[in-house]
Amino acid sequence: MIGRLNHVAIAVSDLASGTAVYQSMLGAKVSEPQAEPDHGVTVVFVELPNTKIELLEPLGENSPIARFLESNPSGGIHHVCYEVDDIIAARDHLKNEGARVLGTGEPKIGAHGKPVLFLHPKDFCGTLVELEQA
Amino acid sequence: MIGRLNHVAIAVSDLASGTAVYQSMLGAKVSEPQAEPDHGVTVVFVELPNTKIELLEPLGENSPIARFLESNPSGGIHHVCYEVDDIIAARDHLKNEGARVLGTGEPKIGAHGKPVLFLHPKDFCGTLVELEQA
Repeated sequence: MIGRLNHVAIAVSDLASGTAVYQSMLGAKVSEPQAEPDHGVTVVFVELPNTKIELLEPLGENSPIARFLESNPSGGIHHVCYEVDDIIAARDHLKNEGARVLGTGEPKIGAHGKPVLFLHPKDFCGTLVELEQA
Repeated sequence: MIGRLNHVAIAVSDLASGTAVYQSMLGAKVSEPQAEPDHGVTVVFVELPNTKIELLEPLGENSPIARFLESNPSGGIHHVCYEVDDIIAARDHLKNEGARVLGTGEPKIGAHGKPVLFLHPKDFCGTLVELEQA
């Protein structure tokens, strides 16, 4: 069912410092910051040959990563995103298997303009999993 | 400098349950368990089209993931591994930039038979980073 690893998302308190780590220290190509007010984050994309790393900085009040950063002030890996061909079929399969889908269970349009869902970490090896329609 | 994302490593307390999550629920191809006594883990590989997920279960005493699992009993993302062309050049560059390399600073032979180093999470956005010679 799951296809490519679309991205690994790393929450950071300061996007400029995070960019410096990936650009100057690790020598990767990092995009310009992109504000995603609907998602409560500003994001940069670290482009690797086979996937990408997204660095997320909180934007506005009620950012979904604010509480994570309170617990992890140095930052940390926030979630992984897997691509699926059919997000509705994937959701229904997972619910049948007893897994918890977060929120209303209806896909929202994610930061890449495609339908996404998030899955409960406790049902997925302690890992917050995003599914994105490929 | 960094190239492909070689893998994302997820620590789990029970490899059979972790395998079931990725195989039955997420529908991915998962390898047979492989004991790595030198690294204190038993591992399965989840094969995705562009990279892999490694599920790690503690093996023996002093497993490097035992303490992580005490803090994260449901499991969790333990590290990410980036490939580099020249691990010695990468290490020297990172040390010059002020980053901390864990252990003695000399590469060890990792679970894939290639030289690896680990970098201090506090210098890398709160993320434990493994570098592997490509």
